[in-house]
Amino acid sequence: MTEILKGAAVVAAMNEATTALVEVLTAQGARPTLVIVRVGEREDAVAYARGATRRCEQVGVVVRELILPDDCSQAELVAAIQQLNSDDTAHGVLLLRPLPTHIDDDTARNTLAPHKDIDGITDASVVGVFTGEDRGFNPCTPQACLEILDHYGIEIAGRRVVVIGRSLVVGKPVAHMLLARNATVTIAHSRTADLPSVVREADIVVACVGRAGMVGIEHLSPGQIVIDVGINVLTDGSLAGDVDFASAQEIVSAITPVPGGVGTVTTSVLVKHVAQAAKKTQARIIKA
Amino acid sequence: MTEILKGAAVVAAMNEATTALVEVLTAQGARPTLVIVRVGEREDAVAYARGATRRCEQVGVVVRELILPDDCSQAELVAAIQQLNSDDTAHGVLLLRPLPTHIDDDTARNTLAPHKDIDGITDASVVGVFTGEDRGFNPCTPQACLEILDHYGIEIAGRRVVVIGRSLVVGKPVAHMLLARNATVTIAHSRTADLPSVVREADIVVACVGRAGMVGIEHLSPGQIVIDVGINVLTDGSLAGDVDFASAQEIVSAITPVPGGVGTVTTSVLVKHVAQAAKKTQARIIKA
Repeated sequence: MTEILKGAAVVAAMNEATTALVEVLTAQGARPTLVIVRVGEREDAVAYARGATRRCEQVGVVVRELILPDDCSQAELVAAIQQLNSDDTAHGVLLLRPLPTHIDDDTARNTLAPHKDIDGITDASVVGVFTGEDRGFNPCTPQACLEILDHYGIEIAGRRVVVIGRSLVVGKPVAHMLLARNATVTIAHSRTADLPSVVREADIVVACVGRAGMVGIEHLSPGQIVIDVGINVLTDGSLAGDVDFASAQEIVSAITPVPGGVGTVTTSVLVKHVAQAAKKTQARIIKA
Repeated sequence: MTEILKGAAVVAAMNEATTALVEVLTAQGARPTLVIVRVGEREDAVAYARGATRRCEQVGVVVRELILPDDCSQAELVAAIQQLNSDDTAHGVLLLRPLPTHIDDDTARNTLAPHKDIDGITDASVVGVFTGEDRGFNPCTPQACLEILDHYGIEIAGRRVVVIGRSLVVGKPVAHMLLARNATVTIAHSRTADLPSVVREADIVVACVGRAGMVGIEHLSPGQIVIDVGINVLTDGSLAGDVDFASAQEIVSAITPVPGGVGTVTTSVLVKHVAQAAKKTQARIIKA
């Protein structure tokens, strides 16, 4: 029987742990606080902010929104981020992107203090993922993959992992995070020759290509664990992963569903990072 | 017959191209200049500087040395690097490391302007390697591996590469540089289960573990291309690679020798980067 690695159980366990940490910090007078910085009214950004806010409220994390108009200047955004950097009551900062095209993404991102960068978007955080050093926070979606594996007790060390996709937001960071956990990691992609045979060799498959059902029966083999990061909107409005779920279910040992898998866990990672950022800030203040 | 991928031929071709570029720039009044920054008198640093200087002189690149005493303060070193950043006659800067322990390596490295960072040691350069964007220069040793493959006309795109070793100076960057060239890359390491069978699947093997002869006949298969980055000093004082050369020669299609392989090419990459840095500076000055 194929095990369905549902996100809900992971979310419940993570939220419980985060709630406990938030209570401790709140009792110390340092209630964890997330500041969501949004420029303009992009529908996807508004929706993401709403989801993050709801999850924060569930665990007692305070959310503040800083909304700048679509035509705000780069200097205004940079100044706003700098102010948050020096604001001890803003523990984590989520800068929603893409930004309007008149603002340089590199400049905006890298203005953020790495210890408040709870989605791992600054260069310093990226270097930390690459080197395996603890410089900031890991990006939330790849971290959600690891949370699921850990929650379900799936061994990572020594296993062969094939990551399909090499994006900066998922493929590359998740490869390094699994490498840091001593997996043997292969990064495969659109230019990989004989992709099915490469993927069939894996113990753990992480699919993050962004194409509905592109991983099919020919890529899979018995006993595999499949983490499906894809969230693709089909023409009928329903959601599908990168993996052909029905086919996979007949072969593999375990698989995350879409929806209800990695995507669900991502927001809980974000909230956990806010609480951890608050804890670090509090430790610094107590020490000082 | 196994082809020996000698570094000398690569060096000769690279030096010819670099010499031509240096002549053009010198005629424009911008003679490419490398500044080697050395703190203290570590024997390995002195030897490396000597080798780099010799290679620079061969192609007409000027070398200046900035030698600080072993007990110089971090502030002094940072100030010296900052001055080089704003010195338009210093095109490339090579900061020799390890630094004395009283100096923070991160701070010193990241003081250097990325466009002068000809060995890819700054965070900005590291991010560039990870993302595949052109932010500075690639580190020289991994780049030397690619120069050898390119010089000998070995196809990279679509090939399966296994990198053995995950160091920050070679394994991780070379993996990303080959990935950017559309190879399917696996990073294997000391914790990889059944390493021999993983390595045997590769079309191209890059060995960078730093242990003499650890890659033997059991890891290799016919037709493979082997790039041996290891330079290990044996008890009798001779040098050996990570690959058991005699065994490999009986099986693989092509292999780099040690000495006389990757190590030889590394300095030519450094010199090429200095000329490229000078070219970029010159283009900026002409434009301004």
